[in-house]
Amino acid sequence: MDYMAELAEKGAIAKQAARKLAALSTSVKNKALLAMADALETGYSTIVAANAKDVERAEAGGMAKPLIDRLLLNQARIQAMAEGVRQIAALPDPVGESLSGWVRPNGLNITKVRVPLGVIGIIYEARPNVTVDAAGLCLKAGNAVILRGGSEAINSNTAVTAVIAEAAYAAGVPEGAIQLVETTDRQAVAAMLKLNKYLDVIIPRGGAGLIKTVVENSTVPVIETGTGVCHTFVDATADLAMAQDIAFNAKVSRPGVCNAMETLLVHQAIAADFLPAMLERYHQAGVDLRGCPETMKYHQAVKPATEEDWAAEFLDLILAVRVVGNLDAALEHIAAYSTRHSEAIVTRDYDNARRFQQEVDAAAVYVNASTRFTDGFEFGFGAEIGISTQKLHARGPMGLPELTSIKYVVNGNGQIR
Amino acid sequence: MDYMAELAEKGAIAKQAARKLAALSTSVKNKALLAMADALETGYSTIVAANAKDVERAEAGGMAKPLIDRLLLNQARIQAMAEGVRQIAALPDPVGESLSGWVRPNGLNITKVRVPLGVIGIIYEARPNVTVDAAGLCLKAGNAVILRGGSEAINSNTAVTAVIAEAAYAAGVPEGAIQLVETTDRQAVAAMLKLNKYLDVIIPRGGAGLIKTVVENSTVPVIETGTGVCHTFVDATADLAMAQDIAFNAKVSRPGVCNAMETLLVHQAIAADFLPAMLERYHQAGVDLRGCPETMKYHQAVKPATEEDWAAEFLDLILAVRVVGNLDAALEHIAAYSTRHSEAIVTRDYDNARRFQQEVDAAAVYVNASTRFTDGFEFGFGAEIGISTQKLHARGPMGLPELTSIKYVVNGNGQIR
Repeated sequence: MDYMAELAEKGAIAKQAARKLAALSTSVKNKALLAMADALETGYSTIVAANAKDVERAEAGGMAKPLIDRLLLNQARIQAMAEGVRQIAALPDPVGESLSGWVRPNGLNITKVRVPLGVIGIIYEARPNVTVDAAGLCLKAGNAVILRGGSEAINSNTAVTAVIAEAAYAAGVPEGAIQLVETTDRQAVAAMLKLNKYLDVIIPRGGAGLIKTVVENSTVPVIETGTGVCHTFVDATADLAMAQDIAFNAKVSRPGVCNAMETLLVHQAIAADFLPAMLERYHQAGVDLRGCPETMKYHQAVKPATEEDWAAEFLDLILAVRVVGNLDAALEHIAAYSTRHSEAIVTRDYDNARRFQQEVDAAAVYVNASTRFTDGFEFGFGAEIGISTQKLHARGPMGLPELTSIKYVVNGNGQIR
Repeated sequence: MDYMAELAEKGAIAKQAARKLAALSTSVKNKALLAMADALETGYSTIVAANAKDVERAEAGGMAKPLIDRLLLNQARIQAMAEGVRQIAALPDPVGESLSGWVRPNGLNITKVRVPLGVIGIIYEARPNVTVDAAGLCLKAGNAVILRGGSEAINSNTAVTAVIAEAAYAAGVPEGAIQLVETTDRQAVAAMLKLNKYLDVIIPRGGAGLIKTVVENSTVPVIETGTGVCHTFVDATADLAMAQDIAFNAKVSRPGVCNAMETLLVHQAIAADFLPAMLERYHQAGVDLRGCPETMKYHQAVKPATEEDWAAEFLDLILAVRVVGNLDAALEHIAAYSTRHSEAIVTRDYDNARRFQQEVDAAAVYVNASTRFTDGFEFGFGAEIGISTQKLHARGPMGLPELTSIKYVVNGNGQIR
């Protein structure tokens, strides 16, 4: 079957399934999620065997060790995936929630109710755990899902999907609710991006290249996730010990993720007090430092920052550092280079804290805390399908409610206009 | 200046303005809106003179009379536009509203706050009143707007924009908050659809062709508005007098709008009681009737419906009529042909009412009322920027809150992860 035929067939089945899913009770969905978790654990040997084929091919193809590690599945990792699905089962069901309701002067009773989005396309890269995670979240929110993983993980994803879909269908979930695109033809992604007839939304999960491709080519509505050029501004009145801990944590605790800080901005009034120890601490931790001329005065390890450095999402132990004249200069820098993900100020000045939170345009704006908290679990959502960096529909960490839409239920007794 | 240069310049200015607009107080925005309304009334002669040029050219070009009437501005219509802006001033400001807030176990205080979307692109067709309406709504929700109207109305739109923008800027709105694309080069629309650097969202307002072009070509997130293939299902237990009034109103009261009914579905058990009088009433009102074979038995004026008729948005005094065996058949028909705008059932059966509202996937689902109520004003929103037929971000009538996004404001005292 060619990829167009496969997508059309899966799309049609998903759309049928979505109608039934929208009316599926919470108890059936939860029972299915728990069955999926159990099936992952009992079926782990099939999954591990399929995964071994992917790993073998990746090794033969010379894939880098860290990427092979991301691809690898073992019993412990499969148990962690199962545990994640059980956590989704324990979350409240967003579907059916009444968001507001009112009566019009003519007696019409209008209720705004949460409903599933319908059919969600997820396009992702090597990690096979996304297959389970995305399928579980979409199911709990009443959506059908069409998964398209990376070709390097095709055997793993096929095995995982077979295990969880079979368990879900046996528990009463309509067939077609969880499907994987089986062809590894790269053109299938392009075709998915035009599948408006069947897909209500596409969520890409992966690197900047994948997200750019999806945003630029999709006619299906997209939720853009990902890129984080995050800043921390250390204000003149900051508690310097607190500022050092926050700035260190934001850069070093996990540099490869989108909520890690990429540029540190420092008020000139405290630069001489703050920067020498701060820069030395980064240097000791192996951080490659790139600074403005003023910053370079405070540590010999600082190399000159280029224009590209200010705009870079390093995702690595690299940090750009700039001394700025005042809050306004910090706000200007952030407005110019931020990707609107997460921004922080460390300050003891009430007015500056207030201005920063009002004027910075980002999904999450922090006072006196690390940007690393922008995360569905850290926010208390109990789940995360990604972090939206666009402003439409969802912004910041997306949990189950972000996988829903609304409808207006209107009850009358003969009203005409 | 070529269109790319114009768009880049206007985009950059709009983005600057959007930063200031986000922090602009409600009282300044309201003062500006009232000043815009006053300026429209005092400046009406300039606008009428500019409009006369458009009308003259349209007449010379042989534009159809109803379209020329839509293009025409006179003092009364300009006063109506001013009144609309005053109504927007009277609405509550959505910006700054706290939607929820909580404290995490680590002491982080998270608040979800409503913020403007940023820069909104509006692409629309001939009616010059959209210029004022869209500018007023975007301003009230704290957004900068870039307007692109039809070339037939370019003189009118230029004059209107000059009048309202000048009044708004004099009242304290940042320059660049309200801008019109001045070139009539058709390629400017295509370029706007790729203006991701400056635009946060594009909303098309116009016919199916315009909306299709925007949805298929935009890399900027789009809110799709418009197409309505709406159904009314008259169930076996319907109050037949009520059903006749609702079905008549839904088709005939204003057939050219998106919430008008296009297909009437009738339960076979009451077809013989209901259809003869209903079809005669439509026939008397000049409705062109196209029915299934069963429907054709009940009135000689009914012509056979084609497959295209079931999917058609007639936007005219044309109606497709089908007799169906039961509720399930009605639900199947609606799932197959609906554009998910507005759907109605007329029934006295509690379970059928409940099933219809749960299972029909549409922005608004009615029991015992006309689909014609799907409208921002009829819903009580006090405004309407359009009716969304997609599921992402906004669904159904869009008022001021639908022109906003959110951000998470996070307050800590040194939290690190």
